[in-house]
Amino acid sequence: MFQESQRDAWLQRYGEEPPPDLAPVEAFLRHRSVRRYDDRPVPEGTIAALVACAQSAATSSYAQAWTLVSVQDSEKRAVVANLCGDQKQVLTAPWFFCVCIDLYRSHALGEKSGVIPDAVGTAEALMVTAVDASLAAERMVCAAEAIGLGACYIGALRNKPQELAELLDFPPGVFGIFGLCLGYPSEADTRAVIKPRLPQPIVWHREKYQREPDVSAFDARMEEFYPRIGMDTSTTWSARQARRFSLGYLQGRETLDERLREMGFLTD
Amino acid sequence: MFQESQRDAWLQRYGEEPPPDLAPVEAFLRHRSVRRYDDRPVPEGTIAALVACAQSAATSSYAQAWTLVSVQDSEKRAVVANLCGDQKQVLTAPWFFCVCIDLYRSHALGEKSGVIPDAVGTAEALMVTAVDASLAAERMVCAAEAIGLGACYIGALRNKPQELAELLDFPPGVFGIFGLCLGYPSEADTRAVIKPRLPQPIVWHREKYQREPDVSAFDARMEEFYPRIGMDTSTTWSARQARRFSLGYLQGRETLDERLREMGFLTD
Repeated sequence: MFQESQRDAWLQRYGEEPPPDLAPVEAFLRHRSVRRYDDRPVPEGTIAALVACAQSAATSSYAQAWTLVSVQDSEKRAVVANLCGDQKQVLTAPWFFCVCIDLYRSHALGEKSGVIPDAVGTAEALMVTAVDASLAAERMVCAAEAIGLGACYIGALRNKPQELAELLDFPPGVFGIFGLCLGYPSEADTRAVIKPRLPQPIVWHREKYQREPDVSAFDARMEEFYPRIGMDTSTTWSARQARRFSLGYLQGRETLDERLREMGFLTD
Repeated sequence: MFQESQRDAWLQRYGEEPPPDLAPVEAFLRHRSVRRYDDRPVPEGTIAALVACAQSAATSSYAQAWTLVSVQDSEKRAVVANLCGDQKQVLTAPWFFCVCIDLYRSHALGEKSGVIPDAVGTAEALMVTAVDASLAAERMVCAAEAIGLGACYIGALRNKPQELAELLDFPPGVFGIFGLCLGYPSEADTRAVIKPRLPQPIVWHREKYQREPDVSAFDARMEEFYPRIGMDTSTTWSARQARRFSLGYLQGRETLDERLREMGFLTD
């Protein structure tokens, strides 16, 4: 029974049979972004448990340099949703978190203890805090899914970082890197499905990088899949993913480097 | 029994009793960095399962712009370990992955399909790929821990990014953001313990950012904890975390912004 269910999840990811000796990891294969929620409230004790999971993630050199800001006030939530390109799930999620990298706290605590962290403006400081905040958030999401919740990340939290900082009183050195919606999934949401992924050999290379990615089978698979989630097939996955990294797509985020500098990052 | 065990994990994180209505998330609270491994091999099928978990993480706009390069060849592994400041676990881990953000593939596939991703040099492209690679890795780590494996992230993979790129034949646009060691934990490793974390109110703020972090109780708790993992107590956690973001600490990473530019990032 369990094997059958894991086989099903694998098939949805890769469109082919799993290897015979697959380890039992099904729960982690079943992620899907959940953008519609039912009315069942998520109690504080559940969120406290999930924050503990987030904090239990690895943190480079034990720095713990990230902060979650939950926004539950409905008027404030509406402003945040607007800053995130009016994505409806930001408005409707039972819980919404701004996941922030936080070099302000590091600086404040350092000053008090006589150690000035003079490298907070380096790319390294930005990278390591971005990594740590992301590890924390994903452990929180894995735990949330394990107890029946659904989640959706909101990259559009980076659209207008300074407006967000003003709204939530972020000091310099605090940057909202992404949002996180949490709630019990609505059964009515037929688009919240397990989506295909690239074949493993495209993303898992051995001993050295392989420079000739052939994703034609995946593009073909996606041409079949897109209509299932209401998307047209006039553009291949290959073209769509490239568009994600095109200036015309970035909705203000093309100037993120300037914004980051104004907020105290990347200044060295 | 289960409740008791989860209470124990919570106590080790926060040094105080859990709330009475805590959700059952114990497995995710028990993370610890595992740097010593036993001889039990980790079969390919297990790794394939874990890579599928990594791929099942959310990916912004479906871009899937990261790549894992496993390094199993012992001579090559020794060079990687040396580039990572000679951390022993890089040498001894049954599996080692370079987790890479990958804008090369995006560019190569875009070119083929007639869409040039002209924003790969933006801070946004760097941030979103760093986030996605980290989400993938942490889902892989959560799954690994669920089936009895242990993991250790290696931030020092960023120490000498160009030497690493040359060794593993990375094209421009591929950057090894951190390493990941995987293996069955050695029972003999008494330092692989659940480590304390900051009290929740320090990292979880409500409705707005709280600017006055008081970590004196945590500093005191750490003064008791440090000797348990063989560290001296002459420096507080507050001072140690600030040192993490000091130029003297960064082991070459203080020039990461220049290295990233040379590798095709942050050029816009």
